[in-house]
Amino acid sequence: MKNLIKSALCIFAMSFAVNTVAAEYTLKLAHTWPKGFPIFGTSVDDYAKLVSEMSGGKIEIKVDSRNKHKSAFGIFDFVKSGQYDIGQSASYYYGGKDPDTLFFTTMPFGMTAEEQYAWFYHGGGLELANEVYGKHGIEVMLAGNTGVQMGGWFRKEIKSVADLKGLKMRIPGFGGKVMAGVGATPTNLPAGELYQALERGTIDALEWVGPSLDLRMGFHKVAPYYYTGWHEPATELMYFFNEKKMASLPKWVSSVLKNAAKLTAYNMTVLSNHESGKNWSTMLSEYPNIKVKEFPQSVLTALKKSNADLIAKEYARSPMAKKIIDSQADYLKRARAYTEISLQSYLNTVAN
Amino acid sequence: MKNLIKSALCIFAMSFAVNTVAAEYTLKLAHTWPKGFPIFGTSVDDYAKLVSEMSGGKIEIKVDSRNKHKSAFGIFDFVKSGQYDIGQSASYYYGGKDPDTLFFTTMPFGMTAEEQYAWFYHGGGLELANEVYGKHGIEVMLAGNTGVQMGGWFRKEIKSVADLKGLKMRIPGFGGKVMAGVGATPTNLPAGELYQALERGTIDALEWVGPSLDLRMGFHKVAPYYYTGWHEPATELMYFFNEKKMASLPKWVSSVLKNAAKLTAYNMTVLSNHESGKNWSTMLSEYPNIKVKEFPQSVLTALKKSNADLIAKEYARSPMAKKIIDSQADYLKRARAYTEISLQSYLNTVAN
Repeated sequence: MKNLIKSALCIFAMSFAVNTVAAEYTLKLAHTWPKGFPIFGTSVDDYAKLVSEMSGGKIEIKVDSRNKHKSAFGIFDFVKSGQYDIGQSASYYYGGKDPDTLFFTTMPFGMTAEEQYAWFYHGGGLELANEVYGKHGIEVMLAGNTGVQMGGWFRKEIKSVADLKGLKMRIPGFGGKVMAGVGATPTNLPAGELYQALERGTIDALEWVGPSLDLRMGFHKVAPYYYTGWHEPATELMYFFNEKKMASLPKWVSSVLKNAAKLTAYNMTVLSNHESGKNWSTMLSEYPNIKVKEFPQSVLTALKKSNADLIAKEYARSPMAKKIIDSQADYLKRARAYTEISLQSYLNTVAN
Repeated sequence: MKNLIKSALCIFAMSFAVNTVAAEYTLKLAHTWPKGFPIFGTSVDDYAKLVSEMSGGKIEIKVDSRNKHKSAFGIFDFVKSGQYDIGQSASYYYGGKDPDTLFFTTMPFGMTAEEQYAWFYHGGGLELANEVYGKHGIEVMLAGNTGVQMGGWFRKEIKSVADLKGLKMRIPGFGGKVMAGVGATPTNLPAGELYQALERGTIDALEWVGPSLDLRMGFHKVAPYYYTGWHEPATELMYFFNEKKMASLPKWVSSVLKNAAKLTAYNMTVLSNHESGKNWSTMLSEYPNIKVKEFPQSVLTALKKSNADLIAKEYARSPMAKKIIDSQADYLKRARAYTEISLQSYLNTVAN
């Protein structure tokens, strides 16, 4: 009888081991965004759910937003130090930690999301990213793409390069440097102050993301010109994993963590595209007078030159930067030749 | 002592349950393609590996190519009957089984891959597909996209609708019907006979896929005109799951099976894009005289009308067809308005 009970307990324990609800592996994750931040932040919550579901509850990820850890741009250090096992952020925020991280988010006039995914996964891009991050004990995976970000909301139409001189625009990062190169004055303001600054003319223009995240900011109510994109054609977020932690886990656990991240990235990309279509439709129905504009070719030519000058400096900076820039340029050339005869041609011919 | 042995055995059995190498769940999968068929077929092998890896070897998928099961277009019946647990094929091959399956691969002049993924996952597309397939005891997941398929290889330039009259072209399925509507003569030939038929002029033109899979067929050696795409802008393959089998599995097992399928689909889409860029570059370097052509607007207008006539018949055929066509049309309208101000504008402005 005792043996029978023991056997029954054993069978119960085994079934528990297979269909367990108690986590056997608990990982801490920190991301850059406020709690519940649409798309960028919620996709991390989706990631944790996916990992739990696919592991039958054996792997638990505890997600901390920046409301908790208080350091939006501390993700790199959190994961490097092991304070967190996993991070989600954007690579280009960490140029101050390692200038070679700049290249793994998006580049002005660079690849589209489709082209860039192909570069990351089949053109050596992810290997290059891991070469850079490996020096910091971090392994990276992609985390999701916004698609082509819009050029931004402008109070006045831009008809020539002269109209950019002295233009006060909220445009951070590399895009801001490119804008500065043509005479604009990039400014930075906290997100909460942007609407009022644009409304009052404290700034003349700003870029945020695209319809997916612009709608809730309300910029379309105070600046009539919505310019199409050039500076961030394929903004890809990134997952950071502490290398030592990952190496300490069973292979199936690290496989679930990495592949769920990979799936989450694609899912976010599709969601972002969906939300953009939906929100653009909403914006247009509420404010049918939004004027979508493309920058004149003279302006684009000036921006391209400014960008090329900055890239040339990067190119000279380090052998690693040169290697990455060459890889991207080679891949873009080949990928774009195909995009032209497929997607671009399709969009241009069927619309007529 | 006996109890001690029992406990030890129990602990051994439990550890086996957690870190097992012997499969606990074995599923049979059949796909449409020859063994080792690039991209379409190899992605299924990748799927089986991914499932095994993420489950620590507990879930095994035995993959049968058509070399084994001998029935390229029998996948629907295999999974419906339970002869196979999982299938991978294309939905539009099964119009003879259920005409409503036609809409879940790609539609002439329809959505791009990015737009269609958003429709499937956020616009109700996958739910509609599962409404159709659910009647047959099948649950479906997407399986990977070719991107915009090329319009095909032509021996002569097409300058007007008159040039299509009597044109013998290998173009199967719905695209073939659209072509027939403008006076062409769609023909079907086994893949192995296509090259010679095109070379000898037995056929005047053919479409296959795009550079990703066209290169190995060698058509560029015998037909100089490569037309851009219209009839299959986003050909998506599909995984079929036997519903009863899926319902019999623990939740984590069905989650791994479905999410690994979802990831595999995206991975195939990216790989297809990469291979197209690579192969297009190879084709051009070997045969720099390939002439890429867009159909004249008069031809596209005629093809669009022929397509609209066929869709109108489908629309009248059944309430389900109407529901699907309306859903796609509504989504496309909204999604394309966003594509125009983002990706299309980007490609058109940065190329100059």
